[in-house]
Amino acid sequence: MKAGVLFSGGKDSALAALLLAPHYEVELNTFAFGEGRDLRAVEAAGAALGFPWQRRTFPEGTLATALDRLVADGYPNGAIGLVHRAALEVLAAGHKVVADGTRFDDRVPMLDSGEARSLMDRCGCAYVRPLLGYPRAEVDRLVARYFVIERGETGRMPNGDYEDELRAGLRERGLDPAPFFPPMHEQTLVRGRQG
Amino acid sequence: MKAGVLFSGGKDSALAALLLAPHYEVELNTFAFGEGRDLRAVEAAGAALGFPWQRRTFPEGTLATALDRLVADGYPNGAIGLVHRAALEVLAAGHKVVADGTRFDDRVPMLDSGEARSLMDRCGCAYVRPLLGYPRAEVDRLVARYFVIERGETGRMPNGDYEDELRAGLRERGLDPAPFFPPMHEQTLVRGRQG
Repeated sequence: MKAGVLFSGGKDSALAALLLAPHYEVELNTFAFGEGRDLRAVEAAGAALGFPWQRRTFPEGTLATALDRLVADGYPNGAIGLVHRAALEVLAAGHKVVADGTRFDDRVPMLDSGEARSLMDRCGCAYVRPLLGYPRAEVDRLVARYFVIERGETGRMPNGDYEDELRAGLRERGLDPAPFFPPMHEQTLVRGRQG
Repeated sequence: MKAGVLFSGGKDSALAALLLAPHYEVELNTFAFGEGRDLRAVEAAGAALGFPWQRRTFPEGTLATALDRLVADGYPNGAIGLVHRAALEVLAAGHKVVADGTRFDDRVPMLDSGEARSLMDRCGCAYVRPLLGYPRAEVDRLVARYFVIERGETGRMPNGDYEDELRAGLRERGLDPAPFFPPMHEQTLVRGRQG
Protein backbone atom coordinates (compact mmCIF):
# COMPACT_ATOMS: atom_id res chain seq x y z
CA MET A 1 0.00 0.00 0.00
CA LYS A 2 1.35 3.44 -0.95
CA ALA A 3 1.53 6.06 1.82
CA GLY A 4 1.71 9.73 0.88
CA VAL A 5 3.86 11.34 3.61
CA LEU A 6 3.90 15.11 4.19
CA PHE A 7 7.60 15.92 4.15
CA SER A 8 9.27 19.19 5.14
CA GLY A 9 12.82 17.84 4.87
CA GLY A 10 13.03 18.05 8.67
CA LYS A 11 13.75 15.37 11.24
CA ASP A 12 10.21 14.49 12.31
CA SER A 13 8.72 13.86 8.87
CA ALA A 14 11.92 11.99 7.88
CA LEU A 15 11.60 9.68 10.91
CA ALA A 16 7.89 9.15 10.22
CA ALA A 17 8.77 8.03 6.68
CA LEU A 18 11.47 5.71 8.00
CA LEU A 19 9.09 4.08 10.50
CA LEU A 20 6.51 3.52 7.76
CA ALA A 21 8.98 2.13 5.23
CA PRO A 22 8.91 -1.58 6.22
CA HIS A 23 5.11 -1.60 5.91
CA TYR A 24 4.22 0.90 3.16
CA GLU A 25 5.47 2.12 -0.21
CA VAL A 26 6.55 5.56 1.02
CA GLU A 27 6.13 8.64 -1.21
CA LEU A 28 7.37 11.97 0.18
CA ASN A 29 5.31 15.06 -0.63
CA THR A 30 6.35 18.67 -0.05
CA PHE A 31 3.84 21.47 -0.45
CA ALA A 32 4.61 25.04 -1.49
CA PHE A 33 2.28 27.97 -2.12
CA GLY A 34 4.07 29.11 -5.24
CA GLU A 35 5.79 27.47 -8.17
CA GLY A 36 8.83 29.66 -7.51
CA ARG A 37 9.75 28.25 -4.11
CA ASP A 38 13.19 26.64 -4.10
CA LEU A 39 12.78 23.11 -2.73
CA ARG A 40 16.08 21.66 -3.97
CA ALA A 41 17.38 21.04 -0.43
CA VAL A 42 14.14 19.21 0.48
CA GLU A 43 14.36 17.12 -2.68
CA ALA A 44 17.96 16.28 -1.74
CA ALA A 45 16.81 15.28 1.76
CA GLY A 46 14.28 12.92 0.17
CA ALA A 47 16.98 11.46 -2.06
CA ALA A 48 19.25 10.96 0.99
CA LEU A 49 16.43 8.97 2.60
CA GLY A 50 16.01 6.92 -0.55
CA PHE A 51 12.30 7.61 -1.08
CA PRO A 52 10.56 9.06 -4.14
CA TRP A 53 9.67 12.73 -3.72
CA GLN A 54 6.88 14.88 -5.15
CA ARG A 55 6.49 18.63 -5.23
CA ARG A 56 2.90 19.71 -4.59
CA THR A 57 1.22 23.10 -4.84
CA PHE A 58 -1.57 24.32 -2.57
CA PRO A 59 -4.93 25.15 -4.15
CA GLU A 60 -5.37 28.77 -5.29
CA GLY A 61 -6.31 30.97 -2.36
CA THR A 62 -4.76 28.89 0.42
CA LEU A 63 -2.02 31.45 1.13
CA ALA A 64 -4.51 34.34 1.22
CA THR A 65 -6.78 32.43 3.65
CA ALA A 66 -3.82 31.55 5.86
CA LEU A 67 -2.57 35.15 5.86
CA ASP A 68 -6.04 36.44 6.76
CA ARG A 69 -6.09 34.04 9.71
CA LEU A 70 -2.54 34.98 10.74
CA VAL A 71 -3.34 38.71 10.69
CA ALA A 72 -6.61 38.17 12.58
CA ASP A 73 -4.97 36.00 15.27
CA GLY A 74 -1.71 37.92 15.61
CA TYR A 75 0.16 34.62 16.09
CA PRO A 76 0.80 31.75 13.69
CA ASN A 77 -0.78 28.64 15.29
CA GLY A 78 -4.15 28.84 13.56
CA ALA A 79 -2.65 29.69 10.17
CA ILE A 80 -0.07 26.88 10.37
CA GLY A 81 -2.79 24.42 11.38
CA LEU A 82 -4.97 25.56 8.48
CA VAL A 83 -2.13 25.13 5.98
CA HIS A 84 -1.25 21.69 7.36
CA ARG A 85 -4.87 20.54 7.04
CA ALA A 86 -5.02 21.91 3.48
CA ALA A 87 -1.95 19.85 2.56
CA LEU A 88 -3.48 16.69 4.09
CA GLU A 89 -6.74 17.29 2.19
CA VAL A 90 -4.95 17.59 -1.17
CA LEU A 91 -2.86 14.50 -0.46
CA ALA A 92 -5.87 12.50 0.77
CA ALA A 93 -7.67 13.10 -2.53
CA GLY A 94 -5.06 10.97 -4.31
CA HIS A 95 -3.91 8.50 -1.65
CA LYS A 96 -5.57 5.72 0.37
CA VAL A 97 -3.06 6.36 3.18
CA VAL A 98 -1.72 9.79 4.14
CA ALA A 99 0.82 10.36 6.88
CA ASP A 100 2.81 13.07 8.62
CA GLY A 101 5.42 13.56 11.33
CA THR A 102 3.13 14.78 14.12
CA ARG A 103 4.64 13.84 17.51
CA PHE A 104 3.06 13.13 20.90
CA ASP A 105 4.41 16.44 22.23
CA ASP A 106 3.35 18.58 19.26
CA ARG A 107 0.75 21.28 19.69
CA VAL A 108 0.84 22.90 16.24
CA PRO A 109 0.14 21.59 13.71
CA MET A 110 -1.99 18.90 15.33
CA LEU A 111 -5.38 17.57 14.29
CA ASP A 112 -7.52 16.62 17.26
CA SER A 113 -9.31 13.24 17.23
CA GLY A 114 -12.46 14.69 15.68
CA GLU A 115 -10.57 16.48 12.91
CA ALA A 116 -8.57 13.33 12.12
CA ARG A 117 -11.74 11.21 11.96
CA SER A 118 -13.47 13.82 9.81
CA LEU A 119 -10.56 13.83 7.34
CA MET A 120 -10.71 10.02 7.09
CA ASP A 121 -14.51 9.92 6.74
CA ARG A 122 -14.61 12.58 4.03
CA CYS A 123 -11.70 11.18 2.00
CA GLY A 124 -12.23 7.48 2.59
CA CYS A 125 -8.55 7.30 3.46
CA ALA A 126 -6.48 6.38 6.51
CA TYR A 127 -4.53 9.16 8.26
CA VAL A 128 -1.50 7.60 9.92
CA ARG A 129 0.80 9.41 12.36
CA PRO A 130 3.69 7.04 13.09
CA LEU A 131 5.22 9.37 15.72
CA LEU A 132 2.02 10.22 17.59
CA GLY A 133 2.87 7.68 20.29
CA TYR A 134 6.54 8.67 20.58
CA PRO A 135 7.66 11.23 23.17
CA ARG A 136 10.19 13.83 22.11
CA ALA A 137 13.20 12.16 23.77
CA GLU A 138 12.69 8.94 21.78
CA VAL A 139 12.13 10.83 18.52
CA ASP A 140 15.38 12.71 19.07
CA ARG A 141 17.30 9.56 20.01
CA LEU A 142 16.12 7.72 16.88
CA VAL A 143 16.78 10.79 14.71
CA ALA A 144 20.37 10.97 15.98
CA ARG A 145 20.79 7.27 15.31
CA TYR A 146 19.53 7.35 11.74
CA PHE A 147 20.11 10.82 10.28
CA VAL A 148 22.68 13.55 9.81
CA ILE A 149 20.72 16.74 10.39
CA GLU A 150 21.43 20.44 10.21
CA ARG A 151 19.75 22.82 12.65
CA GLY A 152 19.02 26.48 12.15
CA GLU A 153 16.49 29.26 12.51
CA THR A 154 13.40 29.52 10.28
CA GLY A 155 14.20 31.54 7.18
CA ARG A 156 17.84 30.46 7.22
CA MET A 157 17.10 26.78 6.60
CA PRO A 158 16.13 25.79 3.06
CA ASN A 159 13.50 23.28 4.25
CA GLY A 160 9.83 22.99 3.41
CA ASP A 161 8.54 24.85 6.46
CA TYR A 162 5.51 27.05 5.71
CA GLU A 163 6.65 29.94 7.92
CA ASP A 164 8.98 31.31 5.27
CA GLU A 165 6.23 31.81 2.70
CA LEU A 166 3.83 33.18 5.32
CA ARG A 167 6.47 35.78 6.28
CA ALA A 168 6.92 36.72 2.61
CA GLY A 169 3.15 36.99 2.22
CA LEU A 170 2.93 39.39 5.18
CA ARG A 171 5.69 41.54 3.70
CA GLU A 172 3.76 41.69 0.41
CA ARG A 173 0.80 43.03 2.39
CA GLY A 174 3.11 45.72 3.79
CA LEU A 175 3.28 44.10 7.25
CA ASP A 176 6.39 43.38 9.33
CA PRO A 177 6.35 39.61 9.98
CA ALA A 178 8.52 39.78 13.13
CA PRO A 179 5.76 40.40 15.72
CA PHE A 180 3.65 37.52 14.36
CA PHE A 181 6.19 34.73 15.01
CA PRO A 182 8.12 33.51 18.04
CA PRO A 183 11.67 34.89 17.88
CA MET A 184 13.70 31.65 17.78
CA HIS A 185 11.97 28.82 16.00
CA GLU A 186 14.50 26.09 15.30
CA GLN A 187 14.16 24.11 12.09
CA THR A 188 15.94 20.98 10.96
CA LEU A 189 16.97 19.65 7.59
CA VAL A 190 18.06 16.11 6.87
CA ARG A 191 21.44 16.11 5.13
CA GLY A 192 22.07 12.37 5.05
CA ARG A 193 21.75 9.02 6.77
CA GLN A 194 24.05 7.87 9.55
CA GLY A 195 26.59 5.17 8.92
CA MET B 1 17.75 -0.03 23.38
CA LYS B 2 15.50 -2.62 25.02
CA ALA B 3 11.74 -1.94 24.95
CA GLY B 4 9.51 -3.74 27.45
CA VAL B 5 6.22 -4.27 25.62
CA LEU B 6 2.98 -5.10 27.45
CA PHE B 7 1.73 -8.18 25.63
CA SER B 8 -1.66 -9.88 25.95
CA GLY B 9 -1.09 -12.30 23.09
CA GLY B 10 -3.67 -10.34 21.08
CA LYS B 11 -3.37 -8.59 17.73
CA ASP B 12 -2.75 -5.02 18.89
CA SER B 13 0.14 -5.69 21.25
CA ALA B 14 1.61 -8.12 18.70
CA LEU B 15 1.52 -5.45 15.97
CA ALA B 16 3.01 -2.87 18.35
CA ALA B 17 5.93 -5.24 19.01
CA LEU B 18 6.40 -5.84 15.29
CA LEU B 19 6.48 -2.09 14.52
CA LEU B 20 9.07 -1.55 17.26
CA ALA B 21 11.28 -4.47 16.24
CA PRO B 22 13.50 -2.73 13.63
CA HIS B 23 14.37 0.00 16.15
CA TYR B 24 14.35 -1.68 19.58
CA GLU B 25 15.30 -4.92 21.27
CA VAL B 26 11.74 -6.08 21.95
CA GLU B 27 10.87 -7.97 25.14
CA LEU B 28 7.26 -9.11 25.57
CA ASN B 29 5.77 -8.96 29.07
CA THR B 30 2.49 -10.48 30.20
CA PHE B 31 1.05 -9.64 33.61
CA ALA B 32 -1.12 -11.89 35.72
CA PHE B 33 -2.54 -11.38 39.22
CA GLY B 34 -1.74 -14.87 40.39
CA GLU B 35 1.03 -17.38 39.87
CA GLY B 36 -1.58 -19.96 38.91
CA ARG B 37 -2.82 -18.28 35.75
CA ASP B 38 -2.22 -20.40 32.65
CA LEU B 39 -0.32 -18.25 30.14
CA ARG B 40 0.99 -21.01 27.89
CA ALA B 41 -0.99 -19.79 24.86
CA VAL B 42 0.39 -16.27 25.35
CA GLU B 43 3.91 -17.61 25.67
CA ALA B 44 3.33 -19.56 22.42
CA ALA B 45 2.10 -16.36 20.73
CA GLY B 46 5.33 -14.64 21.79
CA ALA B 47 7.36 -17.54 20.43
CA ALA B 48 5.43 -17.36 17.12
CA LEU B 49 6.43 -13.70 16.88
CA GLY B 50 10.04 -14.57 17.62
CA PHE B 51 10.50 -12.27 20.62
CA PRO B 52 11.61 -13.16 24.16
CA TRP B 53 8.72 -13.33 26.61
CA GLN B 54 8.48 -12.69 30.35
CA ARG B 55 5.74 -13.55 32.80
CA ARG B 56 5.16 -10.77 35.35
CA THR B 57 3.04 -10.67 38.47
CA PHE B 58 1.19 -7.60 39.74
CA PRO B 59 2.13 -6.21 43.15
CA GLU B 60 0.17 -7.62 46.10
CA GLY B 61 -3.17 -5.88 46.43
CA THR B 62 -3.60 -4.82 42.80
CA LEU B 63 -6.47 -7.26 42.19
CA ALA B 64 -8.28 -6.19 45.37
CA THR B 65 -7.96 -2.50 44.43
CA ALA B 66 -9.19 -3.20 40.90
CA LEU B 67 -12.15 -5.24 42.21
CA ASP B 68 -13.08 -2.46 44.65
CA ARG B 69 -13.10 -0.02 41.74
CA LEU B 70 -15.08 -2.39 39.53
CA VAL B 71 -17.74 -2.94 42.20
CA ALA B 72 -17.94 0.79 42.95
CA ASP B 73 -18.27 1.75 39.27
CA GLY B 74 -20.50 -1.11 38.16
CA TYR B 75 -18.65 -1.26 34.82
CA PRO B 76 -15.06 -2.24 34.02
CA ASN B 77 -13.44 0.80 32.38
CA GLY B 78 -11.93 2.31 35.52
CA ALA B 79 -10.69 -1.05 36.83
CA ILE B 80 -9.16 -2.05 33.49
CA GLY B 81 -7.43 1.34 33.25
CA LEU B 82 -6.10 0.98 36.81
CA VAL B 83 -4.70 -2.50 36.09
CA HIS B 84 -3.11 -1.33 32.83
CA ARG B 85 -1.40 1.59 34.59
CA ALA B 86 -0.18 -0.77 37.34
CA ALA B 87 1.43 -3.02 34.70
CA LEU B 88 3.12 -0.03 33.05
CA GLU B 89 4.44 1.18 36.43
CA VAL B 90 6.01 -2.20 37.24
CA LEU B 91 7.53 -2.46 33.78
CA ALA B 92 8.81 1.12 33.87
CA ALA B 93 10.75 0.42 37.07
CA GLY B 94 13.01 -1.96 35.13
CA HIS B 95 13.02 -0.55 31.58
CA LYS B 96 14.14 2.69 29.96
CA VAL B 97 11.47 2.23 27.30
CA VAL B 98 8.03 0.74 27.94
CA ALA B 99 5.42 0.22 25.23
CA ASP B 100 1.93 -1.12 24.63
CA GLY B 101 -0.59 -1.67 21.86
CA THR B 102 -2.87 1.31 22.54
CA ARG B 103 -4.54 2.41 19.28
CA PHE B 104 -5.85 5.77 18.08
CA ASP B 105 -9.45 4.53 18.46
CA ASP B 106 -9.02 2.97 21.91
CA ARG B 107 -10.89 4.36 24.87
CA VAL B 108 -9.96 1.83 27.56
CA PRO B 109 -7.27 1.30 28.59
CA MET B 110 -5.88 4.65 27.50
CA LEU B 111 -3.60 7.02 29.40
CA ASP B 112 -4.38 10.65 28.64
CA SER B 113 -1.49 13.00 27.84
CA GLY B 114 -1.06 14.07 31.45
CA GLU B 115 -0.99 10.50 32.76
CA ALA B 116 1.53 9.47 30.08
CA ARG B 117 3.79 12.43 30.94
CA SER B 118 3.47 11.72 34.64
CA LEU B 119 4.51 8.08 34.14
CA MET B 120 7.58 9.18 32.16
CA ASP B 121 8.53 11.89 34.66
CA ARG B 122 8.24 9.60 37.67
CA CYS B 123 10.05 6.65 36.11
CA GLY B 124 12.59 8.50 34.00
CA CYS B 125 11.53 6.27 31.13
CA ALA B 126 9.96 6.73 27.71
CA TYR B 127 6.42 5.43 27.18
CA VAL B 128 6.02 4.55 23.50
CA ARG B 129 2.71 3.66 21.83
CA PRO B 130 3.55 2.61 18.26
CA LEU B 131 -0.13 2.25 17.27
CA LEU B 132 -1.40 5.51 18.78
CA GLY B 133 -1.31 7.20 15.38
CA TYR B 134 -2.88 4.28 13.50
CA PRO B 135 -6.64 4.17 12.92
CA ARG B 136 -8.40 0.84 13.39
CA ALA B 137 -8.70 0.02 9.67
CA GLU B 138 -4.92 0.24 9.18
CA VAL B 139 -4.22 -1.79 12.32
CA ASP B 140 -6.56 -4.52 11.08
CA ARG B 141 -5.08 -4.47 7.56
CA LEU B 142 -1.52 -4.85 8.89
CA VAL B 143 -2.60 -7.52 11.39
CA ALA B 144 -4.18 -9.57 8.56
CA ARG B 145 -1.00 -9.15 6.52
CA TYR B 146 1.39 -10.29 9.23
CA PHE B 147 -0.44 -12.63 11.63
CA VAL B 148 -2.67 -15.65 11.85
CA ILE B 149 -5.10 -14.79 14.62
CA GLU B 150 -7.93 -16.53 16.41
CA ARG B 151 -10.98 -14.57 17.56
CA GLY B 152 -13.31 -15.41 20.40
CA GLU B 153 -15.19 -14.10 23.39
CA THR B 154 -13.45 -13.13 26.65
CA GLY B 155 -13.18 -16.13 28.94
CA ARG B 156 -13.01 -18.53 26.02
CA MET B 157 -9.70 -17.23 24.68
CA PRO B 158 -6.57 -18.24 26.55
CA ASN B 159 -4.94 -14.81 26.13
CA GLY B 160 -3.55 -12.42 28.71
CA ASP B 161 -6.63 -10.23 28.99
CA TYR B 162 -7.32 -9.02 32.54
CA GLU B 163 -11.09 -9.48 32.34
CA ASP B 164 -10.87 -13.19 33.06
CA GLU B 165 -9.16 -12.74 36.41
CA LEU B 166 -11.42 -9.81 37.34
CA ARG B 167 -14.45 -12.05 36.68
CA ALA B 168 -12.95 -14.79 38.84
CA GLY B 169 -12.25 -12.24 41.59
CA LEU B 170 -15.89 -11.10 41.56
CA ARG B 171 -17.08 -14.70 41.83
CA GLU B 172 -14.78 -15.16 44.85
CA ARG B 173 -16.53 -12.18 46.44
CA GLY B 174 -19.85 -13.93 45.82
CA LEU B 175 -20.82 -11.58 42.97
CA ASP B 176 -22.12 -12.54 39.52
CA PRO B 177 -19.65 -10.98 37.01
CA ALA B 178 -22.15 -10.88 34.11
CA PRO B 179 -23.76 -7.48 34.85
CA PHE B 180 -20.34 -5.79 35.22
CA PHE B 181 -19.09 -6.50 31.69
CA PRO B 182 -20.40 -5.83 28.19
CA PRO B 183 -21.96 -9.05 26.85
CA MET B 184 -19.80 -9.65 23.75
CA HIS B 185 -16.24 -8.52 24.14
CA GLU B 186 -14.19 -10.03 21.33
CA GLN B 187 -10.62 -11.02 22.10
CA THR B 188 -7.85 -12.11 19.75
CA LEU B 189 -4.90 -14.43 20.12
CA VAL B 190 -1.95 -14.61 17.76
CA ARG B 191 -1.48 -18.18 16.56
CA GLY B 192 1.30 -17.59 14.04
CA ARG B 193 2.82 -15.35 11.42
CA GLN B 194 1.57 -15.13 7.83
CA GLY B 195 3.59 -16.58 5.00
